Amino acid sequence: MFENLNDWLYHPITQTLWQVLFAIIIYFIVRSVGKNIIKKVFNKKQSKQVSKARLQTLEKLLLNVFSYVLFFIIAFNILDTLGFNLGPVLAAAGVVGLAIGFGAQGLVSDVVTGFFLLLERQLEVGDYVTAGGVDGIVEELGFRTTMIRGFDGTLHYLPNRNITNVDNHSRGNMRALVDLTIPSGEQTDTSIKKVQAAIQSFDHPALVTKPEVIGVETNDLSATVIRVIAKTENMQQWAVERELRKVIRAYFETEEDA
Amino acid sequence: MFENLNDWLYHPITQTLWQVLFAIIIYFIVRSVGKNIIKKVFNKKQSKQVSKARLQTLEKLLLNVFSYVLFFIIAFNILDTLGFNLGPVLAAAGVVGLAIGFGAQGLVSDVVTGFFLLLERQLEVGDYVTAGGVDGIVEELGFRTTMIRGFDGTLHYLPNRNITNVDNHSRGNMRALVDLTIPSGEQTDTSIKKVQAAIQSFDHPALVTKPEVIGVETNDLSATVIRVIAKTENMQQWAVERELRKVIRAYFETEEDA
Amino acid sequence: MFENLNDWLYHPITQTLWQVLFAIIIYFIVRSVGKNIIKKVFNKKQSKQVSKARLQTLEKLLLNVFSYVLFFIIAFNILDTLGFNLGPVLAAAGVVGLAIGFGAQGLVSDVVTGFFLLLERQLEVGDYVTAGGVDGIVEELGFRTTMIRGFDGTLHYLPNRNITNVDNHSRGNMRALVDLTIPSGEQTDTSIKKVQAAIQSFDHPALVTKPEVIGVETNDLSATVIRVIAKTENMQQWAVERELRKVIRAYFETEEDA
Amino acid sequence: MFENLNDWLYHPITQTLWQVLFAIIIYFIVRSVGKNIIKKVFNKKQSKQVSKARLQTLEKLLLNVFSYVLFFIIAFNILDTLGFNLGPVLAAAGVVGLAIGFGAQGLVSDVVTGFFLLLERQLEVGDYVTAGGVDGIVEELGFRTTMIRGFDGTLHYLPNRNITNVDNHSRGNMRALVDLTIPSGEQTDTSIKKVQAAIQSFDHPALVTKPEVIGVETNDLSATVIRVIAKTENMQQWAVERELRKVIRAYFETEEDA
Amino acid sequence: MFENLNDWLYHPITQTLWQVLFAIIIYFIVRSVGKNIIKKVFNKKQSKQVSKARLQTLEKLLLNVFSYVLFFIIAFNILDTLGFNLGPVLAAAGVVGLAIGFGAQGLVSDVVTGFFLLLERQLEVGDYVTAGGVDGIVEELGFRTTMIRGFDGTLHYLPNRNITNVDNHSRGNMRALVDLTIPSGEQTDTSIKKVQAAIQSFDHPALVTKPEVIGVETNDLSATVIRVIAKTENMQQWAVERELRKVIRAYFETEEDA
Amino acid sequence: MFENLNDWLYHPITQTLWQVLFAIIIYFIVRSVGKNIIKKVFNKKQSKQVSKARLQTLEKLLLNVFSYVLFFIIAFNILDTLGFNLGPVLAAAGVVGLAIGFGAQGLVSDVVTGFFLLLERQLEVGDYVTAGGVDGIVEELGFRTTMIRGFDGTLHYLPNRNITNVDNHSRGNMRALVDLTIPSGEQTDTSIKKVQAAIQSFDHPALVTKPEVIGVETNDLSATVIRVIAKTENMQQWAVERELRKVIRAYFETEEDA
Amino acid sequence: MFENLNDWLYHPITQTLWQVLFAIIIYFIVRSVGKNIIKKVFNKKQSKQVSKARLQTLEKLLLNVFSYVLFFIIAFNILDTLGFNLGPVLAAAGVVGLAIGFGAQGLVSDVVTGFFLLLERQLEVGDYVTAGGVDGIVEELGFRTTMIRGFDGTLHYLPNRNITNVDNHSRGNMRALVDLTIPSGEQTDTSIKKVQAAIQSFDHPALVTKPEVIGVETNDLSATVIRVIAKTENMQQWAVERELRKVIRAYFETEEDA
Repeated sequence: MFENLNDWLYHPITQTLWQVLFAIIIYFIVRSVGKNIIKKVFNKKQSKQVSKARLQTLEKLLLNVFSYVLFFIIAFNILDTLGFNLGPVLAAAGVVGLAIGFGAQGLVSDVVTGFFLLLERQLEVGDYVTAGGVDGIVEELGFRTTMIRGFDGTLHYLPNRNITNVDNHSRGNMRALVDLTIPSGEQTDTSIKKVQAAIQSFDHPALVTKPEVIGVETNDLSATVIRVIAKTENMQQWAVERELRKVIRAYFETEEDA
Repeated sequence: MFENLNDWLYHPITQTLWQVLFAIIIYFIVRSVGKNIIKKVFNKKQSKQVSKARLQTLEKLLLNVFSYVLFFIIAFNILDTLGFNLGPVLAAAGVVGLAIGFGAQGLVSDVVTGFFLLLERQLEVGDYVTAGGVDGIVEELGFRTTMIRGFDGTLHYLPNRNITNVDNHSRGNMRALVDLTIPSGEQTDTSIKKVQAAIQSFDHPALVTKPEVIGVETNDLSATVIRVIAKTENMQQWAVERELRKVIRAYFETEEDA
Repeated sequence: MFENLNDWLYHPITQTLWQVLFAIIIYFIVRSVGKNIIKKVFNKKQSKQVSKARLQTLEKLLLNVFSYVLFFIIAFNILDTLGFNLGPVLAAAGVVGLAIGFGAQGLVSDVVTGFFLLLERQLEVGDYVTAGGVDGIVEELGFRTTMIRGFDGTLHYLPNRNITNVDNHSRGNMRALVDLTIPSGEQTDTSIKKVQAAIQSFDHPALVTKPEVIGVETNDLSATVIRVIAKTENMQQWAVERELRKVIRAYFETEEDA
Repeated sequence: MFENLNDWLYHPITQTLWQVLFAIIIYFIVRSVGKNIIKKVFNKKQSKQVSKARLQTLEKLLLNVFSYVLFFIIAFNILDTLGFNLGPVLAAAGVVGLAIGFGAQGLVSDVVTGFFLLLERQLEVGDYVTAGGVDGIVEELGFRTTMIRGFDGTLHYLPNRNITNVDNHSRGNMRALVDLTIPSGEQTDTSIKKVQAAIQSFDHPALVTKPEVIGVETNDLSATVIRVIAKTENMQQWAVERELRKVIRAYFETEEDA
Repeated sequence: MFENLNDWLYHPITQTLWQVLFAIIIYFIVRSVGKNIIKKVFNKKQSKQVSKARLQTLEKLLLNVFSYVLFFIIAFNILDTLGFNLGPVLAAAGVVGLAIGFGAQGLVSDVVTGFFLLLERQLEVGDYVTAGGVDGIVEELGFRTTMIRGFDGTLHYLPNRNITNVDNHSRGNMRALVDLTIPSGEQTDTSIKKVQAAIQSFDHPALVTKPEVIGVETNDLSATVIRVIAKTENMQQWAVERELRKVIRAYFETEEDA
Repeated sequence: MFENLNDWLYHPITQTLWQVLFAIIIYFIVRSVGKNIIKKVFNKKQSKQVSKARLQTLEKLLLNVFSYVLFFIIAFNILDTLGFNLGPVLAAAGVVGLAIGFGAQGLVSDVVTGFFLLLERQLEVGDYVTAGGVDGIVEELGFRTTMIRGFDGTLHYLPNRNITNVDNHSRGNMRALVDLTIPSGEQTDTSIKKVQAAIQSFDHPALVTKPEVIGVETNDLSATVIRVIAKTENMQQWAVERELRKVIRAYFETEEDA
Repeated sequence: MFENLNDWLYHPITQTLWQVLFAIIIYFIVRSVGKNIIKKVFNKKQSKQVSKARLQTLEKLLLNVFSYVLFFIIAFNILDTLGFNLGPVLAAAGVVGLAIGFGAQGLVSDVVTGFFLLLERQLEVGDYVTAGGVDGIVEELGFRTTMIRGFDGTLHYLPNRNITNVDNHSRGNMRALVDLTIPSGEQTDTSIKKVQAAIQSFDHPALVTKPEVIGVETNDLSATVIRVIAKTENMQQWAVERELRKVIRAYFETEEDA
């Protein structure tokens, strides 16, 4: 009887049937396991940065892709078990896949970079940043594209892969810097003292540290450039710089008239 | 008899015939399924951006490609079953395919990028954009090429892969900015007041916010550059800028004469 | 007898002979089918852009390549059937092929790009274009190279892959633009009025829209740049610009003398 | 009996069971060995540069990845032993892996570079460096990104792969260099002597070597540029330069008045 | 006896001998056929562009390469038939080949490009061309390198792959262009008339069309730039331009004196 | 008995045991041979350029890597002999390896370049060089990084792969070159004679050849630039140039006063 | 007995022994043949360009590499014959090889380029060349690096792959070119005549053709630039240019005084 069982067990048809059955079982197990994993991952990842609607879209997309890929693998497997030579199909699919893959390389690169930009919070909506050669306020962070609104109103779409160095100007206090070019004909010392006098009582709500004259910034004995710097609250540096310029100019002009 | 059936079932010729038959059946099933999927996808994707004619062309093209590829795979399969060694053919085809693939890499890249440009609506016909080093109004969005009409009348053809950063100037209000260089010999304060007086009653149908003097933009004490900015409706920024310049100039010129 | 037939059918020598015969039959079928397809494709594709002579050359070339490739594949197949190990030959051929393929990558890229340039009619013989860093009139469109005649008489040969962005200046009306720098010492308003007077009665056979003064284009209060634009027929923009300059200059010069 | 043992030992079912058992044993051995190695490596690598929390995160991550990868390999192995054809699964996984791999190439490159930056201590938190086109003080060193705070307050995020040449300005004493442009009308020798007199008694707490006049740096006989250099403590070079300029200017100005 | 023949025919040793013999026969056939093809191709390709000596060198080289490659393939084949495992040899050869191949990629690229440069006659010895950033007269066209003699006597060696855009200045008539900057203080109209008078009777043996004043080329009302163009024989454009300048200058200078 | 021996020899279990034993023996042989070779190579390579400590570190590292790699290969081999399917493991390892390999490509490139820089002694510690866009004195030569100290005190870390062209300024005598711009108003001949007189008795300990006036270097008739060159000892060129300038200036200034 | 011989011949052990023996014989044959070929090639290639010492070094190196590679191949082969599975070893070696190969790509590229530079004699020791962005006299030509001595004494090491375009300034006569800017206030004709008079009797030992005035090179009517060219012996162009400048200046200066 052992011999018979053996016969039955190892008869080619039985084996084929076994394998097909086996493949179908594996299919249902892997499918339900995989779907659960995807769902769990998405329930965990409810960060504030990405809206809920986008996450659900992504989840649905991933579930679909997973189901289709799994189905094709199992179908291929069963066909292969039934003795159908799938080499050429696979080869053809591989070539097409590679071709698309090369073309879509940028896309994958976008998504990987986008993922890390979100994870490391290099950019947040509302930040004033310089990235990928573009300057402006971040309007939207996508998996493939980041939208930055320039100061002149232009909306810049940047594929994430173009964002390598990120200069985030909204991460702490900024520096206001004014390089004054003073017309010659005055002693350096006098000029410095005048500037110091001009900014003596300078005040601005966004000031973090008071403005300071840090010295002469030019090598030419016949020209005088004096540098004044101050620490200001974020995004207020230009306002402070303009105010500083106005105050100092007014001081010098009054002096001249006097 | 079981033995006989076995014999018959596993006789090489029978097997070969089975496999050929099997391949043909698979061919017809996959073909009709595939064609239906392609058709469904195209019926769904009736977006406004792409004209119907183009979609039908694309559908036809895809159906043809699919039929030919499927036919070749099945033919190869049958030949292989009949004992014909197809290795060299496949190898040759692979080399040629790879060669063309490398050359056509740009093409695939164009189509993938074009697809996302359409999907994310980064560009729409009639938008004023800067993309791929070209400046102008979008005239046509293709799967491979985008046509942009420059302001001097030139028609720019851009392969989509060249479009990475898109600067869309038609997404919201724009800023009008005028940096006035005022000849020296006047107190800064007076100059600012004059400019403010000049733009006091400035009006323009495209204005969104009134123009404002935001301050002095130069570090040189002997030169005065005053910046005026205003928010305007889209594409009206240049007209507003020109109007602003004219109004301020007129004010200064009248003053001088007075 | 069945056993005998079997013997005969599956005897190695018979099998070998069968396969050789089979290969030869396949050879002749594929060859005639392939040749017919190539011929048909060429009879259809009689576009105006490519001359008939070139098409025939290409057809002949393709037929030859096809015949040789097919012959080598069949020969390899038969040798393989006869028990000759062709692995090394294939490997050697593959390496050489890959080496040449890498080197010839540019060539394939040229042909693919050239094909789309012709198909999408981005360039036509006689167009005035800027492409691949070259400016001029298209003289010839080839599968590998495009010939552009520069305005100074130079003939530029561009490999098609170098042509990515195409700026076609022969697709519709063009803009004539004159930025007049007016010597200071005159009210802006007066200057604008003078220019308007000068171009009042300006006429030119190539004008599409009358020239218009669109405003002041400079921020410096002590300098005046007035912009005049007009729409002209294609390729007539320079003539119109020169004519405009002459007319306005004459007007100003007469005024001065007066 | 030997024959029987043989039968039993080499019976397909027994063999399959053996192999599955074997695979499971191997799994547990490799798993515990691998985990121990990872833990040991992390206990050793307690450098000062990387915080403990980050190391623990990394360790956990690595342990997870290792467990999953091992599990999948063993699962594949057992499925394979049970006669399930896993070729297509592997192929599909391979293609997806390759695609992601290409896209994530930058990521791997970041980590490898980051590892060497930490190991060779090219950058340390608090250093003033120029790297990847960015200038500032290192704020944080990550495995993927380095954060550098610019002097104007901007926070620069640099993917480590962008850091190739590192210019570390915090590795030893620096040089203060002043190129004085002296207005013509004076003998070179006199000018040099004046500058030497001016810096005779110059002192600054950050000075390492006294400032020296090293000579004339211009070829034009009608202009005089005199170079003064000094060695200063790190990060004090600008203060010293400014002080030097002030002292020399004062000397010249006093002379003139005298 | 049939059985015996079979035995004899399929005895391993006999088979091995058969295969070796077969390989040797194939060797001699392929060798003589290949050599004849190479020779025929070279007899046909006697173009004027390439010297006979170079062709013979190339032919010899190709024959040698072909013989060696063929010999190695056959030798490998026989060794393989004799049961020698050549996998490692092939693998090693493949790796070395690939390594050299990558390095020699530029070489192949040179030859492919060189071939098309010759075929399309983009460059001919004696042409005045601009190619690969180099300007001069073509001295020699090689399969790998092109030699261009600069006008200052320098000999430029260009690897053909560096030659992408070819600007051939020896393909038809050239344009002579003179942009005259006329000192201000004269009516535009008068200036144009003077220039026209100056070139009225201008003649030069290389002139194809008479020089023409095409108009004013500057926007600044206080400066006058007048453009004169003429068509000249190839390579005579500079001489004509110089002559034109001399004639017009003389006219203006005589006028002044008068 | 022969039959028995055969049985025993070719019994699967015996064979497996044989192979395992064989593998272990091979392991120990290869290990000791390999270790000896590594040690010998390191004893030979005691160059002066690389410190002994670094060599020992490298030797230890290599020995470890060698041992681990060998161990894994043998372990894989034995597992394979025991019927464990290692394909997936190898495939997984291969993909991970490739991924890391791509990322670490720069690392390998650094080491290969570094090896040749040391071997060809292009750079030596203390040399003044320009390499990879950096200027300074070589401080340390590493296998991965080269440290160069800039003249302003900055320490530059250069990954060796960034070092392609090396400009070594410490390989022989240098040239001192002074281009004198002489104010117009003097005959060229007189100027030359004056300069010659000025440098007649010029001496400097670092001079290799006396300074020479080599002629006029400007085409403008109204300006005179005279070039003086001299050969100096290495690194003394700037001192000599400054001295030359001083001497000539003094001469001219004295003349003027006279 | 035939059966016995057969038995003996095809007994696995005998076969294994045969194959090992066979491999060893092949090893000795290939080794001696290969060594002879290498030696012959080197005896032939005694060019003047490469020193004998270097050739011998290279020959030794090649012989060593060849011996080692051959030994490893044979050893692998024998191990394989003895039933040792070498797949993992080969795979590991392949990955390492590939990794190094990618890193060493530049090296191979250097050698290939260097070979062609020597073969085509584009550079020879002592030539004055511009290559790879470096200007100077070739000092040494290596297989990997070329050493060029700059005119300021710097020694430039160029990896050969950086040498693409070679501008060899030592291949024939050179041109001396002087563009004279003549101060305005003189008729063009007079200026030309003066220059012609000045260079009438100009002579220089390195002159190949007498200097010629070729005409006016500027479009501005108020400035005069006259071009003089002459053909000179190699490397004498600068001396001739300086001499020409001196002679013409002297002529003009004398005229003025007169």
